Amino acid sequence: MPDTRRDFLRKVGIAGGAGVMYGTMAALGLVPAAAQAPDYVPPRAGDLNGRPRSVVVLGGGIAGLTAAYELRKGGYKVTVLEARNRPGGRNWTVRGGTVETDLKGITQAARFSRGEYMNAGPARIPQHHVTLDYCRELGVPIEAFANQNADAYLYREGPTALSNTTVRHRTAKADVYGYVSELLAKATDQGALDGYLTPSDKEALIDFLEDFGDIGPKVPGDAAASFRYTGSDRRGYATPPGAGLEEGIPLPPYPLSDVLASGVGNYFSFEFEWDQAMMMFQPVGGMDRIPYAFEKAIGRDKIRYGAKVLGMRNTSSGVVVDYTGPGRKTRRLEADFAICTLPPHIAAKVPGNLPAATTAALEYAEPGDAGKMGIEYGRRWWELDHRIYGGITSTDTDLENIWYPSSGYHGERGTLIGYYNQDEQARRFGALHPDARLARALELGAQVHGPGYARDVQAAFSVDWASIEHSEGAWVDWPSQTDPRYKELLEPAGNIYFAGDHLSHTIGWQHGAMVSARATVTSLHRRVREG
Amino acid sequence: MPDTRRDFLRKVGIAGGAGVMYGTMAALGLVPAAAQAPDYVPPRAGDLNGRPRSVVVLGGGIAGLTAAYELRKGGYKVTVLEARNRPGGRNWTVRGGTVETDLKGITQAARFSRGEYMNAGPARIPQHHVTLDYCRELGVPIEAFANQNADAYLYREGPTALSNTTVRHRTAKADVYGYVSELLAKATDQGALDGYLTPSDKEALIDFLEDFGDIGPKVPGDAAASFRYTGSDRRGYATPPGAGLEEGIPLPPYPLSDVLASGVGNYFSFEFEWDQAMMMFQPVGGMDRIPYAFEKAIGRDKIRYGAKVLGMRNTSSGVVVDYTGPGRKTRRLEADFAICTLPPHIAAKVPGNLPAATTAALEYAEPGDAGKMGIEYGRRWWELDHRIYGGITSTDTDLENIWYPSSGYHGERGTLIGYYNQDEQARRFGALHPDARLARALELGAQVHGPGYARDVQAAFSVDWASIEHSEGAWVDWPSQTDPRYKELLEPAGNIYFAGDHLSHTIGWQHGAMVSARATVTSLHRRVREG
Repeated sequence: MPDTRRDFLRKVGIAGGAGVMYGTMAALGLVPAAAQAPDYVPPRAGDLNGRPRSVVVLGGGIAGLTAAYELRKGGYKVTVLEARNRPGGRNWTVRGGTVETDLKGITQAARFSRGEYMNAGPARIPQHHVTLDYCRELGVPIEAFANQNADAYLYREGPTALSNTTVRHRTAKADVYGYVSELLAKATDQGALDGYLTPSDKEALIDFLEDFGDIGPKVPGDAAASFRYTGSDRRGYATPPGAGLEEGIPLPPYPLSDVLASGVGNYFSFEFEWDQAMMMFQPVGGMDRIPYAFEKAIGRDKIRYGAKVLGMRNTSSGVVVDYTGPGRKTRRLEADFAICTLPPHIAAKVPGNLPAATTAALEYAEPGDAGKMGIEYGRRWWELDHRIYGGITSTDTDLENIWYPSSGYHGERGTLIGYYNQDEQARRFGALHPDARLARALELGAQVHGPGYARDVQAAFSVDWASIEHSEGAWVDWPSQTDPRYKELLEPAGNIYFAGDHLSHTIGWQHGAMVSARATVTSLHRRVREG
Repeated sequence: MPDTRRDFLRKVGIAGGAGVMYGTMAALGLVPAAAQAPDYVPPRAGDLNGRPRSVVVLGGGIAGLTAAYELRKGGYKVTVLEARNRPGGRNWTVRGGTVETDLKGITQAARFSRGEYMNAGPARIPQHHVTLDYCRELGVPIEAFANQNADAYLYREGPTALSNTTVRHRTAKADVYGYVSELLAKATDQGALDGYLTPSDKEALIDFLEDFGDIGPKVPGDAAASFRYTGSDRRGYATPPGAGLEEGIPLPPYPLSDVLASGVGNYFSFEFEWDQAMMMFQPVGGMDRIPYAFEKAIGRDKIRYGAKVLGMRNTSSGVVVDYTGPGRKTRRLEADFAICTLPPHIAAKVPGNLPAATTAALEYAEPGDAGKMGIEYGRRWWELDHRIYGGITSTDTDLENIWYPSSGYHGERGTLIGYYNQDEQARRFGALHPDARLARALELGAQVHGPGYARDVQAAFSVDWASIEHSEGAWVDWPSQTDPRYKELLEPAGNIYFAGDHLSHTIGWQHGAMVSARATVTSLHRRVREG
């Protein structure tokens, strides 16, 4: 909603409290909620009255493929120009045989075993993203993606008892929730929050905290001894419950000050973010099953690979696009319209006659960095030795994250994501030669998993998105998405339209590319029908 | 560990705080922890020096199958007697064609479509259970079980704004965590907890809460306006973020008093319990893939189905077991040893010469109730209309839980668990005829999902474990697992041993049956080798 409306509601909330705010929202017709995408009506075959228009789609990433697919539903003549020799753009699944030369001229050839892969770009899909609708529509089977695992680790550097060692998510949660519950129960019981809570609020809150924190009861007359958190079986055991008399040997909690100082709680909110909360999904066999399914649905003959855009210009009657054709010869394509889905910082450099305001808008985007490494092991030691089946270990080292694979459980081998990092961390890894990246990833990984981390490595492949040709970044950020420059790209420049995740509010997600493409198709189609 | 040791540690914890307690544990050699089962060494082929002993295993449930499988590794001559015509006991996957007549004489025939099923007993496996080790060893493929889903619902009856309606888990969490964080940050900042927190503790705690609760900043000089929770995108949107300028229309939080009074937070701890935290798993195609894999590994010819135990007695040299053989004739089997894995309340009724103390011990177990219903729908409306892909909706009605299937995503049809309940709720459903159970389940389910809940129902099957022959309960409880009667069953009565999940500290889980069977096999094998 517009900022002014949000500001208004925020002010209502601050002045009147949530109850008044809720009532105001209800009065505005904004209640109740459902996590559903706005209705989208694709073009239909009869819409064009037998006068098919032609559209050239620049870029065969998810936005371009979605646009082409939706336009084809309406009978448009579509040609997709894609500089790479595969569909998908940043939706890229690296398998054995994948060869890539980066912008520094360094070539990597992936030697993953048959069936092993890494999703170098997008790798997970929330339930509410239209990405899943396309999986259903295109017949791409999906499986659960383990975006959360209580038995994966947290690793934080520092001076506490929890620092420089592995702490399982479950352990960190139990201790943080235990102490938080103890403290809030004490404060509540002692009347410190009487200005905010009614007697029945207090009772309900303490009931909740006793369960949530697994804390002890009130000890009448002894505030310090009341509601004590002294550990919980939720945090794990020295020896777990077993047969006969083995009731399990619990471990006591880490000290309160260490828990707070360690920073182990700073990852919790990831697990209930709008886009990250479980359940999450992935296509069976690799994320690129989506672009290949699009390719099949659109028609392989409608997509020209190895076709780098060399120029795009509006003409009085349509568009002219020059691109690298077979044999590196320049080819020209004319169409009624173009939809440019190239990354804005790359589109800005394409020669042509775009208005200055459009070029300025494209240049307003700020490319962001991310890096990822796949490491194939000949033994699934994370399952065998750590009993970690999928999920994410979070670190505050340059690795940021280690992902355990969400498929192939109990197999002979497996490929984990050795790091998935962004910004400075990604730049530091990206600056290294791929061999040095692997060495560094194994060194930092050994801090978490021990010296055996370098054992059984079968293959590795790393991607630094800033140095990947045709992408030159993992995504873009906009200084503001209410700035006129951002808005400029939501309207066509003559007969040239724009689409991509960068023109959405879910940047960096396939969902954003898809809903942007749908919006652009809707806009173009309306113009055709009304014109 | 023995209660005295735990009590000691608890006292140390109470008196000295967690830091001292942690140090004490470290001194006792109990730190650090790993979630691993104690080492188990199976019998080996050469252990018996060519003098194979014979063992009759009473009951072909998970404990009996595990015992037989492990004994076979050591060269024992094993015969399993199983009253049912299938392996697995309570590990029971109901498919189209399953016919069951309960103890009241009511027959149900399942009409599920091909590929559809319900796991009537165990249905999920935590990472740290040896159940997964057997899946690996026996070659049973596994897949993720969605035990947690932010987009599934909470449904609580009551008088609040959150009552008698569906609230998504994510929404409830965001609001509860938001208010909890606001309250604790306020109390901390105002000095209410200065007796428990150092200045740096306070700073770290507030930093954590700002992220955990997505709350506002401190407003200097205005305690009421400080750290306000006024909503979060984590809770969901009226309209989610989309293309162009669609930044998403958020919804304000429910009022604090309503959130606390509603009870929506009373389910949160389920998701981080030791046995329930994600990731969780299930065999692909049904839980009974485990017993059938055991059957294959043991040898189909070693298992006699339809063999109800009619008597068991110790003799001077071994055991004699009478059972129902083919044509309902009584058959007799002699062996060196028996391992009785029948439910204790059923074993107690088997004629024989068990010592009075053993019979008293078996009778000490208290059967517990659980019920489950599978409902097959011809349309996966939970995915299509609610965007719920697996997971659990928690209610405080007699349904207790509704489970959405963790497989077959995007398929034509699907089978959900219409209720999985226990105790009183299970007894109330169990008292009904299966047709009436379905009517009641659809009525209560419609409260959650709307009147369409009864549409597209293709088939249903319900299990009331208390009235299932050969089980007569879902599991047993012991008044105390340190009572001499419980301990009695951990030792053999002559040549008759006992095993089962009831003789473990993970009752109601296959893990318990497996570790109990291993412990019993270990004990029997030691006696043979030492004798």
